[in-house]
Amino acid sequence: MNYKIIRHILSKVLLIEAVSMLLSLICAFIYKETELIYIWLISIAVCITAGFLLSRKSPENKAFYAKEGFVAVALSWITMSLFGALPFFISGYIPNFIDAVFETASGFTTTGATILTDVEVLPKSLLFWRSFTHWIGGMGVLVFLVAILPLSGSNNFFLIKAESPGPAVSKLVPRVKHTAKILYEIYIVFTLAEMILLLFGGMEPFDAITLSFGTAGTGGFGIKNSSIADYSTYSQIVITVFMFIFGVDFSLYHLVLMRKPKYLFKSDEFRTYAGIVFVAITLITINIFPLFKSLGEAIKHSAFQVISIITTTGYATADFDKWPEFSKIILMAVLFVGACAGSTGGGVKVSRIIILLKSIVKEIRIGAHPKSTVKLKMNGRPIEHETVRSVNVYMAAYMAIFAASLLLISLDNMDFATNFTSVLTTIGNVGPGLAGVGPTQNFSAFSDFSKIVFTFNMIIGRLEIFPMLILFSPYTWKR
Amino acid sequence: MNYKIIRHILSKVLLIEAVSMLLSLICAFIYKETELIYIWLISIAVCITAGFLLSRKSPENKAFYAKEGFVAVALSWITMSLFGALPFFISGYIPNFIDAVFETASGFTTTGATILTDVEVLPKSLLFWRSFTHWIGGMGVLVFLVAILPLSGSNNFFLIKAESPGPAVSKLVPRVKHTAKILYEIYIVFTLAEMILLLFGGMEPFDAITLSFGTAGTGGFGIKNSSIADYSTYSQIVITVFMFIFGVDFSLYHLVLMRKPKYLFKSDEFRTYAGIVFVAITLITINIFPLFKSLGEAIKHSAFQVISIITTTGYATADFDKWPEFSKIILMAVLFVGACAGSTGGGVKVSRIIILLKSIVKEIRIGAHPKSTVKLKMNGRPIEHETVRSVNVYMAAYMAIFAASLLLISLDNMDFATNFTSVLTTIGNVGPGLAGVGPTQNFSAFSDFSKIVFTFNMIIGRLEIFPMLILFSPYTWKR
Repeated sequence: MNYKIIRHILSKVLLIEAVSMLLSLICAFIYKETELIYIWLISIAVCITAGFLLSRKSPENKAFYAKEGFVAVALSWITMSLFGALPFFISGYIPNFIDAVFETASGFTTTGATILTDVEVLPKSLLFWRSFTHWIGGMGVLVFLVAILPLSGSNNFFLIKAESPGPAVSKLVPRVKHTAKILYEIYIVFTLAEMILLLFGGMEPFDAITLSFGTAGTGGFGIKNSSIADYSTYSQIVITVFMFIFGVDFSLYHLVLMRKPKYLFKSDEFRTYAGIVFVAITLITINIFPLFKSLGEAIKHSAFQVISIITTTGYATADFDKWPEFSKIILMAVLFVGACAGSTGGGVKVSRIIILLKSIVKEIRIGAHPKSTVKLKMNGRPIEHETVRSVNVYMAAYMAIFAASLLLISLDNMDFATNFTSVLTTIGNVGPGLAGVGPTQNFSAFSDFSKIVFTFNMIIGRLEIFPMLILFSPYTWKR
Repeated sequence: MNYKIIRHILSKVLLIEAVSMLLSLICAFIYKETELIYIWLISIAVCITAGFLLSRKSPENKAFYAKEGFVAVALSWITMSLFGALPFFISGYIPNFIDAVFETASGFTTTGATILTDVEVLPKSLLFWRSFTHWIGGMGVLVFLVAILPLSGSNNFFLIKAESPGPAVSKLVPRVKHTAKILYEIYIVFTLAEMILLLFGGMEPFDAITLSFGTAGTGGFGIKNSSIADYSTYSQIVITVFMFIFGVDFSLYHLVLMRKPKYLFKSDEFRTYAGIVFVAITLITINIFPLFKSLGEAIKHSAFQVISIITTTGYATADFDKWPEFSKIILMAVLFVGACAGSTGGGVKVSRIIILLKSIVKEIRIGAHPKSTVKLKMNGRPIEHETVRSVNVYMAAYMAIFAASLLLISLDNMDFATNFTSVLTTIGNVGPGLAGVGPTQNFSAFSDFSKIVFTFNMIIGRLEIFPMLILFSPYTWKR
């Protein structure tokens, strides 16, 4: 294990976190939150000091491999969550450190689950930080690091591979560094576009900025207790459209920019994603229609909620926990599925679901005609055996982590729907679930122990399980 | 598709069903249920007539392949459920035919879920039939057919393969017919042993016989509304021990009989099965201890319930739906896992869980040391790639069927715990779930549509998904 390079990466991550906090400091200045300015200065100082201590010895050997990639990424996310919790904790707005870490991990992992019963009492600079963690975590801090740091090619690739979601990581361009830059450029452009459109509709600048961060990262932290319910229909529609956009594989946008727009509609994953969204909206609209004044109203809420949940954003315009069970099951199903691989969204990912379904169809065809040769294909090309294998082992690990988490948090003796959907929504990086963790509820009722489990779940879900398992596996540290 | 051979097999299945009903007819004579005698005669006549009509043309070509095996087995189980429902329906004790089919499928698939709110009003011959369906379905009607019919080797194997549970089917002896005979011999001996031990404890002969059928098939239909709660502690312990026994791979008993008892303790599956049972009993005992008068009482109920649920029997001595959530989640977890492959139990099967967990460990080890070569092993021997693949595709299909069923039955607008565990318990062939389908509840509150879904779930679960998928797949019937 190359400890020095891991320390080196962690020190850079802490510096990025300090720089990110600078924006919140500026926010505190703008809104004259004098009592917060010291909090931000202390937090920034702690990050810089810790980063400096870690970087004292520069690594002479900059080579590292898959193992170091997994460990560095897993440790980075834990570090970010611990240090990012400082402003909440020191300011006293979240007096329990475990709560503060939960909230920060929920931010970075773009989950959007909260332990706060009233977010509106938070000063603006803390609200800004909360939403900004979504934006940093959405595209990934190590992707950002790779985009700006002078690291060599293979090192970069192991970091991106460990942090990026989806069954197979594709490089947009031959150089990893360049790929990371392109991803961030697309990310920034779309985020700005959403901000401008929200401002255009008359939204307050602070709201437009923070809600755009929450949309872009598919996070879901709101700055009002009513989430998105009290904004104008125009704003809700803009947010709906952008949630959908941020749930799509970014490499498809790159292809569109490269003047190959046909690839968007040739993509099996995009078509399935759009198809699921369409079918889910239609079924829920029919199911909830009696609850609303007009068809338009029903469609609006159905579309907002389906897209918010499948992209794993978690914003809400209605308390869907009060909808009929059929609609709730559809929402939980799309919550499980999640967004496209290569997007900022979480969940199992549409492409994994496609591969699993195709493997079932293949099995049926072979059962019916044992001599037939059936090849699994995606976008017209055969799916590599390695990809299928990784999807299968991901699902097995997903279920194992799920079962273990469910067992641990059931010690709090909450009801089954709360227990089940709280684990589902944290591993899926969504935010709300049903019953006790429904869209108008929060995670404050759980014990500290359960909150620690959920914090791990969120990071495990964001990193797609294996970086965290490898970090905590004795095999990694043997010899 | 060799339609004639499938018709031939179906006709034999109907004749076996008619012969099975003869026992119920005898039961009606013994207990002087005069009004039931006609019902049994009519039912037997219908089965024989239908069997005769199907067998009019004898197949000249007796060869058939995997496809015919899957289709014949799937159709056999549907046929058995439809015709086996006749006595319940014609007698008027279950006036809704869909309910009667649900009850019969629940019997044959050894699920033990019921739509009856009061089983004690049923005449003894119907109660006998209900329990006897468990016994027939437990080891499998086609395994029985293979044991007695003069079919050639490869044909037999495709039937056994499609009906027998577990990721890989092993032949105990070179000849399939002989294997089937040995399995039934062990099955009969253990069933008789349980009956004798129950009689020895002073249980009524009728109760001893029916409850032994329910235990042997890991079914769970009781003949009292209180299930097993009102029997003596001795009887409860005997049933606990035999439920455990019937959850073990029968081929291990064959090895023990062949004077190779060490294989029992060398078996990874048996050791894991026993380990899960031990850990689950211990955790639940600690958790429920405050609810009971003594530690012995807590251990007795914990052991009974854990073993009843993991073997997918479904008998109850206590209303575990009132236990703390932690215990309920453990029970739902072992319900999902199920018994050993090659036993009469249902669920995913312990061996599949072992293979999934080993594949996760392999992935972690490869992540930590990419150059290491890790081979999946079971009982000291490498697991075939084909087995791992079949486990993965089974899990994918399991989840797909689960999600689809959950969605369909959620139209009844029951609560989440009821919906989720009703699907889990029917696919797993267990019987009780939580909340609305808890051990003191039943399935009568669901709509006919949901009952049809559950009936399919039970047969799908018993046949381990693919025979039913292949039966209903257009690929099977093309060309």
